[in-house]
Amino acid sequence: MPGRHSRGGLAGGAAAGDGEDALLAALVPELPEGAWTDLGPGDDAAVVRAEDGRVVVTTDALVAERHFRPRTASPEDVGWRAAAQNLADVAAMGAVPTALVVALVVPRTPPEPWADGWTTGLARGLAAACASLEGADGCGVVGGDLTGGEEVVVSVTAFGDLRGLAPVRRDGARPGDVVALAGVQGCSAAGLAVLERRVRPGAAAWAGSPVESAADERVADLVRAHRRPRPPCAAGPAAAEAGATAMLDVSDGLVRDAGRLARAGVVVLDLSSELLAPHRDAVLPVADLLGVEAWRLVLEGGEDHGLLATFPPEAVLPEQFAPVGVVRAGTAPAVLVDGERYGGAGGWDHFG
Amino acid sequence: MPGRHSRGGLAGGAAAGDGEDALLAALVPELPEGAWTDLGPGDDAAVVRAEDGRVVVTTDALVAERHFRPRTASPEDVGWRAAAQNLADVAAMGAVPTALVVALVVPRTPPEPWADGWTTGLARGLAAACASLEGADGCGVVGGDLTGGEEVVVSVTAFGDLRGLAPVRRDGARPGDVVALAGVQGCSAAGLAVLERRVRPGAAAWAGSPVESAADERVADLVRAHRRPRPPCAAGPAAAEAGATAMLDVSDGLVRDAGRLARAGVVVLDLSSELLAPHRDAVLPVADLLGVEAWRLVLEGGEDHGLLATFPPEAVLPEQFAPVGVVRAGTAPAVLVDGERYGGAGGWDHFG
Repeated sequence: MPGRHSRGGLAGGAAAGDGEDALLAALVPELPEGAWTDLGPGDDAAVVRAEDGRVVVTTDALVAERHFRPRTASPEDVGWRAAAQNLADVAAMGAVPTALVVALVVPRTPPEPWADGWTTGLARGLAAACASLEGADGCGVVGGDLTGGEEVVVSVTAFGDLRGLAPVRRDGARPGDVVALAGVQGCSAAGLAVLERRVRPGAAAWAGSPVESAADERVADLVRAHRRPRPPCAAGPAAAEAGATAMLDVSDGLVRDAGRLARAGVVVLDLSSELLAPHRDAVLPVADLLGVEAWRLVLEGGEDHGLLATFPPEAVLPEQFAPVGVVRAGTAPAVLVDGERYGGAGGWDHFG
Repeated sequence: MPGRHSRGGLAGGAAAGDGEDALLAALVPELPEGAWTDLGPGDDAAVVRAEDGRVVVTTDALVAERHFRPRTASPEDVGWRAAAQNLADVAAMGAVPTALVVALVVPRTPPEPWADGWTTGLARGLAAACASLEGADGCGVVGGDLTGGEEVVVSVTAFGDLRGLAPVRRDGARPGDVVALAGVQGCSAAGLAVLERRVRPGAAAWAGSPVESAADERVADLVRAHRRPRPPCAAGPAAAEAGATAMLDVSDGLVRDAGRLARAGVVVLDLSSELLAPHRDAVLPVADLLGVEAWRLVLEGGEDHGLLATFPPEAVLPEQFAPVGVVRAGTAPAVLVDGERYGGAGGWDHFG
């Protein structure tokens, strides 16, 4: 029957009297057109240039109360994160992000404490991430879909261009390679710990107001790192050019994601606490505040969306990368820290 | 903290002990690899060939109890529909479907009466649609994401290749053009009416068993048309080759979607009841059974995902298309039936 399934889509027409299409029409002006966009929202589908002749594709969904909490994350934060984590996956293949689309489930009543009109904030967050992340600034939001439902779901699919290079897969690490990391690690988990334990480093720290002391500022930086993760998108294509043998986006924690590279390549990744020390130092203020071990934040904290890659020993690392370990041969895949199995409370030594 | 957001993804690694990744690993063998796939599930992102140098992109989400009812649609049906409606959007640009990705929200308990393992059925439905729809048989399912949530959401993003032709947009219809339709129209709405009113055309008709009488068979066909819509995907690229001036996927009903072409092109679409008669005849058995007007099913029924296009008068229509009207100039966009405004109960004459 007519109207039973109002298909909408940013790629849907703006039928008079159709609240969904009207809402979509209101969002489109918030969205970046993108440098690779041939045809944006408003038709059955969009058209994005893929000059390489291949397109990199990834999809990731965020669900309210599972991947974010509306009490501690604004709609802008959620839009930012939804874009950032998908852009990181594109970059982790060595590709330049070109475009994304978003499917949004919108409940009748906004989740507390969000207000009506939160979809505009979410669109602004998507746009802000594309505009602000180095290497993603040409990325457009070229289409989408909007539908009713019980809980907020933000499902993003992102695209990228390989510029003639081979995709950097997870399975190419070889004994002797250097393990290198681009981006921060542990900061998002530290920021989340602050938010969830309600340790407020000066009342206004995460309302965006200026903070008072240097210590407060460092804590506020960590909270921002959780709310607005900054994957080093430009580092992905740079790694591909520098000859990276394997790469992935660190979304589930350094040891866990390093384990994925180890298993895929059937090698041992030996991380160095000395090389990782700058990451530990960055989270120390919060670790001290909360009484947690800074190393656990660095080795197990997720959602920073840095890029972990392996490079041949002779490669010149791109400027965004710093070495954090070496690849060794082994009878079974494993992740070591300073040559020993890391048996953090999360129990990440259960493979192999 | 580690594992707080298990990112998964068909493009995620298979970490031991991770239920989500294990579930994903179980789904991958169900999914078609696809003729355009360079790199399928298992890495941060997939790689799909886009030989044209552009990629067509569309996204559409289905939410339980809004876009389908688990009581009347099997997981296979829902997977099929999720694929079909996105493939139709790709075809409606004149593109050949090449690949799709799916983000799935999976509640802890399956919706009644679905059983555990329904995600496998859904994957099979996606695969069956790609394999069965003419023009979509090279389409692969190249990646995805799986996450927990309160209600089932199936969010599909589909891609297509334009093969060097311009995309067929909605806004190109010109006075004098022929309006033509590929695919069925009204059948899905008729089938839904049967399902929702519980008029059972022989008990086993929609359990897939043979039906007894010819009338029952025609009703069963309509139920199938609702559960497994068959967008004529090959007709989209054929229309582009034949010089179609405008095209869209008929998802919200013939008059409503014709209105979108009329508004986009600032023209009048005059449909002919005589030319549409075969569509009316197809739904007559159900219309009679239910006491609804067959014309309303044809003119207002949605979700058949046929393709409505306009062609220059001299064009040779592709075999999948039949003429259903003409484009006329007018002072305001409108849809007419036999030269008069159609004022169906849905009130679709409120534009212009």
